[in-house]
Amino acid sequence: MPEPARNGQAATLDLEGWACPLPLRDSPNIVMGHGGGGAMSGELIEHLFLPAFGAAAAGEMTDSAVVTVGGTRVAFSTDSFVVKPMIFPGGSVGDLAVNGTVNDIAMSGAQPLVLSTAFILEEGTPLSIIHRIATDLGAAATTAGTKLVTGDTKVVDSGHGDGVYINTSGFGIIPEGVDIRPQRARPGDTIIASGHIGVHGVAILSCREGLEFGTTIRSDTAALNGLVATMIATGADIHVLRDPTRGGVAAALNEICTTAHLGAALDERSLPIPPEVRDACGLLGLDPLYVANEGKLIAFVAPDDADTVLAAMHVHPHGRDATIIGEVVTEHPGMVVAKTALGGTRVVDLPAGEQLPRIC
Amino acid sequence: MPEPARNGQAATLDLEGWACPLPLRDSPNIVMGHGGGGAMSGELIEHLFLPAFGAAAAGEMTDSAVVTVGGTRVAFSTDSFVVKPMIFPGGSVGDLAVNGTVNDIAMSGAQPLVLSTAFILEEGTPLSIIHRIATDLGAAATTAGTKLVTGDTKVVDSGHGDGVYINTSGFGIIPEGVDIRPQRARPGDTIIASGHIGVHGVAILSCREGLEFGTTIRSDTAALNGLVATMIATGADIHVLRDPTRGGVAAALNEICTTAHLGAALDERSLPIPPEVRDACGLLGLDPLYVANEGKLIAFVAPDDADTVLAAMHVHPHGRDATIIGEVVTEHPGMVVAKTALGGTRVVDLPAGEQLPRIC
Repeated sequence: MPEPARNGQAATLDLEGWACPLPLRDSPNIVMGHGGGGAMSGELIEHLFLPAFGAAAAGEMTDSAVVTVGGTRVAFSTDSFVVKPMIFPGGSVGDLAVNGTVNDIAMSGAQPLVLSTAFILEEGTPLSIIHRIATDLGAAATTAGTKLVTGDTKVVDSGHGDGVYINTSGFGIIPEGVDIRPQRARPGDTIIASGHIGVHGVAILSCREGLEFGTTIRSDTAALNGLVATMIATGADIHVLRDPTRGGVAAALNEICTTAHLGAALDERSLPIPPEVRDACGLLGLDPLYVANEGKLIAFVAPDDADTVLAAMHVHPHGRDATIIGEVVTEHPGMVVAKTALGGTRVVDLPAGEQLPRIC
Repeated sequence: MPEPARNGQAATLDLEGWACPLPLRDSPNIVMGHGGGGAMSGELIEHLFLPAFGAAAAGEMTDSAVVTVGGTRVAFSTDSFVVKPMIFPGGSVGDLAVNGTVNDIAMSGAQPLVLSTAFILEEGTPLSIIHRIATDLGAAATTAGTKLVTGDTKVVDSGHGDGVYINTSGFGIIPEGVDIRPQRARPGDTIIASGHIGVHGVAILSCREGLEFGTTIRSDTAALNGLVATMIATGADIHVLRDPTRGGVAAALNEICTTAHLGAALDERSLPIPPEVRDACGLLGLDPLYVANEGKLIAFVAPDDADTVLAAMHVHPHGRDATIIGEVVTEHPGMVVAKTALGGTRVVDLPAGEQLPRIC
């Protein structure tokens, strides 16, 4: 928050009667954790945004909403991207902005029809950087098979912003008969991860901190709508899909379990964590289950259909490392529990904030 | 642009081969004018964004796109709001964020069905401010009769951002038989303004600069979808609607004239400029035609229907000061010409940038 006097805000901030809405944690101010996709983000939505929006808020304001347009079900989603740095090994905020919103739409089983792009540019940013990022964005949209149809550009003063922030919003049509949402999780469902986890977050962190782990870890950012279409085409009964972005696999599974009033039992030895991610996390004291992804999905599938879905995923470029990581149980509703390599168990809690802020 | 070294961006910005895309004006960097909604914004879209997006860009990426969903026409729009200060006489970035996107949707003749809200919050911003702004946002959505269905929250480091930036995106259904777009302008069309112009921009500027003009000028920010519905219900042949935001009435009319290959002839004496706006503009050396609005619209109507539309507007709270400001002519295609109070004429050009940046 800039000092009020500097930009003339002081005279106009009439906040009499506007208190910090309790029971938000101990700080009366925004902290980084509010943007982490974990428990603090949830509190901000539950205790501040939803009460403030009042009757205008429909449902729970989650990552993606289903809206009916003339009898057709549409998945509608929005995301702003503030990743730092803007350009990183394996991608930039440009492709991330497309893939993030495409994936949110795809997690309802929809194919992304159109996207909007809204840029907040910082005064003084070289046009060459914006050109590079916009080119990445266009290429990612082409790869995902979606169209950029409307946009907006704003410029903020030098020293504010961070070069560029991008918001993408968009929608896609949910095919007839497809019903994929957390409430459809069932006891016994097989939990599948589409590939290696933790890669995107560790790539951003390594780049940001100038860390080297023998090899450069590149972000795995990708649009997953093609993989989702392949999975749906098998005719298997897919109950839930989720892209484990901020807060990682831990946050995604906790949210699904809370909504479905069911538990998830993971086997830690089966988690697809590549050695370089495991090494980097070990060195940095991070748990790969909490590290963000942006090119991976988690699927809850009826157990009888799990082999069919896995086989289809294995022949898709974004699913060739797909593997079963656990199952849905009734024992500990709302909780995720992992069987450790040593034979014990540990609770995989919803993270409070995010270990690595600004990874998307 | 922060110094590259400070946040570790230097190591990762591999921009070899990424040049500033000419013929963007003389600066190789983003300047405030690129966000002004005038000629410089147009150049950024034409010479940078559209070529960079390539085949993924559908159409001209204007304020609002028409997308067909299962046979139903949908108007889809996005806008980010970076107004400074966040709270000002007559409103805040919260209601502005709703009204701006609702109005872009309404300018296609659609009623806004759903909105998304994406907040970029600055670390350290008091939660009480966010609470006030979110409450304004919810109330504006309720007033406009739309629903907030999906959202996103990101947090950026203290000193970046400006308290809060808000993106809203949304869509609405265009009624059967309604076809409102710049291409439908016809020679002889009557040009109507829905009320006083220049109010929002002058309110922001006065507040930002601590100026006083005897009376506090309050923003007129409002959702215009109700007024548009009233106008459409008359059955009149409405050809074009436009909300003259950044760049003011001058930018809106220039864009329509360029698209329609027709001219606009204004009568300066008929422009509905309230005395306090005229006085403030005179003192500051501003032309009210270039000052932003966010609660007003411009309509191009078949001349035989003008009286019907005006009469309907006059009984609506947001149209009671509606007045005819000019007509569409064939003489000077792509140009807006105003007859001055002294009997001469002057060309009302597309502004380069924006006289008052960050008014929305």
